[in-house]
Amino acid sequence: MPHTTVPATQHIAFAELQDLLTQIFLRHGTSPEVAAILAANCASAQRDGAASHGIFRIPGYLSTLASGWVNGRAVPQVQDVAPGYVAVDAGNGFAQPALQAARSLLIEKARHNGIALLAIRNSHHFAALWPDVEPFAREGLVALAFVNSMACVVPTGGHKALFGTNPIAFAAPRAGDNPLVFDLATSAIAHGDVQIAARAGHRLPEGYGVDRHGQPTRDPAAVLDGGALLPFGGYKGSALAMMVELLAAALTGGNFSFGFDWSQHPGAKTPWTGELLIVIDPSKGAGHSFTQRTEILVRHMRAAGQDRQPGDRRYQQRAQSDRHGIAIGCEELARLRGLAAAPLPPAG
Amino acid sequence: MPHTTVPATQHIAFAELQDLLTQIFLRHGTSPEVAAILAANCASAQRDGAASHGIFRIPGYLSTLASGWVNGRAVPQVQDVAPGYVAVDAGNGFAQPALQAARSLLIEKARHNGIALLAIRNSHHFAALWPDVEPFAREGLVALAFVNSMACVVPTGGHKALFGTNPIAFAAPRAGDNPLVFDLATSAIAHGDVQIAARAGHRLPEGYGVDRHGQPTRDPAAVLDGGALLPFGGYKGSALAMMVELLAAALTGGNFSFGFDWSQHPGAKTPWTGELLIVIDPSKGAGHSFTQRTEILVRHMRAAGQDRQPGDRRYQQRAQSDRHGIAIGCEELARLRGLAAAPLPPAG
Repeated sequence: MPHTTVPATQHIAFAELQDLLTQIFLRHGTSPEVAAILAANCASAQRDGAASHGIFRIPGYLSTLASGWVNGRAVPQVQDVAPGYVAVDAGNGFAQPALQAARSLLIEKARHNGIALLAIRNSHHFAALWPDVEPFAREGLVALAFVNSMACVVPTGGHKALFGTNPIAFAAPRAGDNPLVFDLATSAIAHGDVQIAARAGHRLPEGYGVDRHGQPTRDPAAVLDGGALLPFGGYKGSALAMMVELLAAALTGGNFSFGFDWSQHPGAKTPWTGELLIVIDPSKGAGHSFTQRTEILVRHMRAAGQDRQPGDRRYQQRAQSDRHGIAIGCEELARLRGLAAAPLPPAG
Repeated sequence: MPHTTVPATQHIAFAELQDLLTQIFLRHGTSPEVAAILAANCASAQRDGAASHGIFRIPGYLSTLASGWVNGRAVPQVQDVAPGYVAVDAGNGFAQPALQAARSLLIEKARHNGIALLAIRNSHHFAALWPDVEPFAREGLVALAFVNSMACVVPTGGHKALFGTNPIAFAAPRAGDNPLVFDLATSAIAHGDVQIAARAGHRLPEGYGVDRHGQPTRDPAAVLDGGALLPFGGYKGSALAMMVELLAAALTGGNFSFGFDWSQHPGAKTPWTGELLIVIDPSKGAGHSFTQRTEILVRHMRAAGQDRQPGDRRYQQRAQSDRHGIAIGCEELARLRGLAAAPLPPAG
């Protein structure tokens, strides 16, 4: 999905963007801890070229915070439920601080038990999912994440939106290279990309969405205006989307994608659901080291003609951003700076 | 995929088919333990209408056993690796006896830790995957299984078969009803269904396979004759297929789908790889009971127009088979009876 054309761009360093976003969050109702985590997450997406989850999301974050739908000062409550099971009540706050609060305990459990699970509930996830799994792979672990979102995907054979875009993310370490990481919506297209397409005036490919009457459409605006997305890959994607509802919501105690009502909170954009992570320590495995095996697989994928491995596009954009700075439209940057200059709210 | 037309069918009881298949396995090189497990598995698939994994597979099992490629008398070695991690060396035998040998330990670990993993290596999986997960859901557990197979799927953007059909299976308990269970190949079509189509003379849908020159084809025979399958859902299915290689092979210590050479074993059909299972105890979760949440989801899927839930078709066929017996073509049944009447091999 090509990003929108802007008249002129400026390049800024990652740290500068992160600081700017931290100030914005701080001035719009989050605690310092939450501001730092959301800013790092959002700046990382922008740095890696994940346009639909970078600064494009800031207006949505701020309107949600202003609406009172999410608690930007929530302090996650971590529960050590069982030797391999950590649960977090995110307190109607964001999922990323909840993950951060449980992260060291989760890693400790995974290394001790061979596998461990993190169940986050009562949480809002408005970001890309790959940032939740990539760090585990950088510690030599294998990670899987599932998050449900908001009813916008029609199950196969059905006529009404029910599932969220319900992404699945996976990360596995390599020997001496960036991890293999994918983050795939179980919908035919990510909701953020429909918004990007609508803003850019692009049409969607065939089979991606339906309008408010359940009729196929290629118009992103019609999809956003009471329409819905379709699952990827037919009934298989639909089955995976169902699995994500069961893992991320039913198992964690979070809401289903159709299970919350934000009608009393105009401006609310962040789905109030749950997230499940599974982390595995591959050093418990038999035979050759896991990272060596990963290298063998990558070598064979290359030889079979798959030149770009999952995650590569982000790593290439990341390297470029690290060298030259992160490209941001000048108008957009001015808007961000304006938001960051708002008066600080009274300490609460 | 409609199954092949046969001149006349007979209905036999599940127990009778199971006994017949047990006798066949016993007379073609397996131990009594392995014979019983494979027979129950194969009879279950036939009973449930899973034609591509029922008695259709018997010739493949027998030619493989005759070729010396698989050890039909292997005794699986279970290792208690870590509090949440069980490993099994299947000893170049079948995966199902390995799972059976580790099953009670795996359940005990899942209930104690909240989550546990079973890593099977040095194993052959020639059956459907749903029978591996459904029983866990019947004990109130959530289960995921991944198995890689043999190089027959071209990765997205590539030109050479590399991945197996690499299915993912999932099972979740319901309150007072059969579990939600799916078993989906990450290829656009299961290999067994290509064989069925070739035997029946049917053409494949567009986008399912390529011929030996990497060109798209709808001829199942061209796919089987040096051609290859495509992943389902484009790059997303390809990413999931890669994940299955990493989980079922790299992590367990089993072979990759491209990592074994059976050229010295004419008649060998069973991929020599690995399998990974993840079992979760949902009673550790917060809020309402998991099975109650499952019911709510099913109710909403029905209301959204999805009349048939994952697994329903098998359960309907199962109920019918339980009432009226399992339909088998008379010729096929005669052939099976012939195989079961072969002399018993000397005890070894």
